[in-house]
Amino acid sequence: MKKLTLLLPLFWGGLFFSQSKSDSIEFKNISDEILTNGQAYNNLHQLAKDIGHRLSGSEAYEKATKWAYKKLKEAGADKVWYQEVMVPVWERGKESLQIKSGTNSWKSLNMLSIGNTEGTNGKDLEGEIIYVKSLEDLDKMKDSEVKDKIVFFNYPFNQTFISTGQAYGDAGKYRFVAASFVAKKGGKAMIIRSLSSAFDDVPHTGTQRYDERYPKIPAVCIGVKSADELEKTLESEKVFAKLNSNCGMKGERLTHSVIGEITGKKDQSVIAVGGHLDSWDVGEGATDDGAGVVQAIEVLRTFKKLNIPNNHTIRVICFANEENGAKGAKKYAEEAKRKNEKHLFALESDSGGFAPRGFGLVMSDGKRNEVKSWSNLFLPYGIYDFDKNYAGTDVQPLQELGSATGELSPDSARYFDIHHTTEDIFEKVNRRELLSGASAETQLLYMIDKYW
Amino acid sequence: MKKLTLLLPLFWGGLFFSQSKSDSIEFKNISDEILTNGQAYNNLHQLAKDIGHRLSGSEAYEKATKWAYKKLKEAGADKVWYQEVMVPVWERGKESLQIKSGTNSWKSLNMLSIGNTEGTNGKDLEGEIIYVKSLEDLDKMKDSEVKDKIVFFNYPFNQTFISTGQAYGDAGKYRFVAASFVAKKGGKAMIIRSLSSAFDDVPHTGTQRYDERYPKIPAVCIGVKSADELEKTLESEKVFAKLNSNCGMKGERLTHSVIGEITGKKDQSVIAVGGHLDSWDVGEGATDDGAGVVQAIEVLRTFKKLNIPNNHTIRVICFANEENGAKGAKKYAEEAKRKNEKHLFALESDSGGFAPRGFGLVMSDGKRNEVKSWSNLFLPYGIYDFDKNYAGTDVQPLQELGSATGELSPDSARYFDIHHTTEDIFEKVNRRELLSGASAETQLLYMIDKYW
Repeated sequence: MKKLTLLLPLFWGGLFFSQSKSDSIEFKNISDEILTNGQAYNNLHQLAKDIGHRLSGSEAYEKATKWAYKKLKEAGADKVWYQEVMVPVWERGKESLQIKSGTNSWKSLNMLSIGNTEGTNGKDLEGEIIYVKSLEDLDKMKDSEVKDKIVFFNYPFNQTFISTGQAYGDAGKYRFVAASFVAKKGGKAMIIRSLSSAFDDVPHTGTQRYDERYPKIPAVCIGVKSADELEKTLESEKVFAKLNSNCGMKGERLTHSVIGEITGKKDQSVIAVGGHLDSWDVGEGATDDGAGVVQAIEVLRTFKKLNIPNNHTIRVICFANEENGAKGAKKYAEEAKRKNEKHLFALESDSGGFAPRGFGLVMSDGKRNEVKSWSNLFLPYGIYDFDKNYAGTDVQPLQELGSATGELSPDSARYFDIHHTTEDIFEKVNRRELLSGASAETQLLYMIDKYW
Repeated sequence: MKKLTLLLPLFWGGLFFSQSKSDSIEFKNISDEILTNGQAYNNLHQLAKDIGHRLSGSEAYEKATKWAYKKLKEAGADKVWYQEVMVPVWERGKESLQIKSGTNSWKSLNMLSIGNTEGTNGKDLEGEIIYVKSLEDLDKMKDSEVKDKIVFFNYPFNQTFISTGQAYGDAGKYRFVAASFVAKKGGKAMIIRSLSSAFDDVPHTGTQRYDERYPKIPAVCIGVKSADELEKTLESEKVFAKLNSNCGMKGERLTHSVIGEITGKKDQSVIAVGGHLDSWDVGEGATDDGAGVVQAIEVLRTFKKLNIPNNHTIRVICFANEENGAKGAKKYAEEAKRKNEKHLFALESDSGGFAPRGFGLVMSDGKRNEVKSWSNLFLPYGIYDFDKNYAGTDVQPLQELGSATGELSPDSARYFDIHHTTEDIFEKVNRRELLSGASAETQLLYMIDKYW
């Protein structure tokens, strides 16, 4: 028996070694295929340049759904379908913001209305701007101090956070919910400093949520430079604003998420990868989130091209309406529940097509440790971080169905320079960085498909 | 005695823990200071926009040396000085390349003469282009097949290498030395595909070295698109080229590297950090290597600003002539040897101002393991790779004097898209990425200064 106990570990050790070696070879095959023949960059060019920005509810979004359907077919999906989603329709229309201090004449500022807000119905809304340092300070103010004023917040993006996502979260409440706090105090409009890591004058839009108990006041964002200048001016003199905008919610519209898959060879449980097909209504939605969409399609294309044995169903989801409602994500999870579909894992890429560094993961400690045990396979590709505990907005609803979830974690330095702006264009995406992210996603799905 | 042996490890453990904690705090101080008050990005704007490209030997380079002197003073250097260096002077002048096939008329291609080559003295050089797959294939050809021909190499940048530097090394011989191989066989000029990771039509210059035994034939590079088109045309018909250029070596010139330091408080042994002040004569030399220069100045500024105790001398070196001779580096090492200066460590940043991932290191295993033992301090800043075995060109000569050396290792995806081109401009550098690299350099120097 001694001989056998000695041999067994050797046998298992050898098996482990040869498995790890074959995985290492497949990792290289995946990377080589994507870096040399990858279609994601060309696909992104089409989406960004031929269609451009595509807020859900818009005609451009409808065009994008047709495009995604076609691309999934071309990539080799066995099945492609549209999933109905009812989405809010928000339209920007014409908009302008002018300010005036002392004896100066009116001066226009670069601005964007914040998404999902109501405008001024094309009428000039005029009022005095008051600078308030924070929501906490607003809370301490008397209603009479705020009444009929236009409240200006200039909360800066905290540059000391290494993850810019953390800085975005920190400053986010001013865009997400502050308008209703202002309205509660009687303020008639709100101006905020854009949530931006850059120091330029580009306004960054994004979604907000009104508290239904208070008036739906207009809320706009301005660039960082304008914001700092405005704060400075307000230190010494009164400043008045003239705001005019036509934006507002225009009901709902039936549209679609687009889904494609290669059906599992051993079982039909789903391993999903996705991005959101909608974007804000400025720029080209190249980084947010054209990148995530074309990367997900690239994963499927690579599985087919390399004949990677998909034991489980590999499904690509191009979600509708992440930006101003996340209705696509909710609908997808509802349908999965209704059909009793088992999801093993759902991954999103919605942090930009930058050089990948790891994956945010929301899963049991056991599963996470298993993924971490693969880290030596990933390290040669610059992927080393499996410790972050988050997943993409669109895959989060699947957590309730017991699915492990995750998000590709690319380098975060540049994302919030261009997020939700006119600068989010194709030219800001680098080919190798984008393809490397697709490769990392494919490698992770290959491992999960093989070992889960 | 038993009690004592039990206590000692606890005591050391506690000491280690508190040291590690104080280092962690200093890492955060360094990062916070640089990400909020860093001057590197503004300095790079000055260098790129006010001075622009600056091949050593040029008037612009002279301007850059004055600028660097001033910046080192401003950053708080105790001493700043110029170090004399005799550099080769190469000038580009006017240049053009036209090709013609069949009954078509002459067509101009985007081109750049390769650095340090001789041109055509302003006369048209005409000849038939022959495509040769590789230097190995050239070697097999008869002299009569090559005589009086213009040899065209289209060796592609290998996209499958994860480190683009490896791909650059792989394709590099075509730019560095191939012209003399062509001349040896009687060829009268050489055209190569640019060493580029992109798929555009931007030519990438760079240095080459003639073998003195053979004629110094003109050698030019063209963009990747033009190169692929040319190869395709040559498959079916003869193509002729008309090359005209005024480039050539114009003797030597006395210029300077610029050096600044804060003198060591405990001893005068040197810990150096640098970049090269010269650039190629196109674009703005922002990534190569304005980034490295402003990062090194930032390290010194941060040591002063935060009152980091510099036990040893912290020295910034802005090297002359890295691009077409490396005379600044040689002279610096010669002077260090002559003065018997002890260098503990010399670090360069010459791989671009991109998001840092680690450090290439050339040092003893013992020293490397010590650096690796600090990796938990670096990890929160995205710095995880200490395994690469290389150092910057300018610090390599110090290895002979027994100095440990290294190079900042940023993400490599974008570097060779713009390297040595008109596209190497300020706008291609991201503020946070640049500053993060400076922070990583400062953190490493802080540790080495404290523990070596």
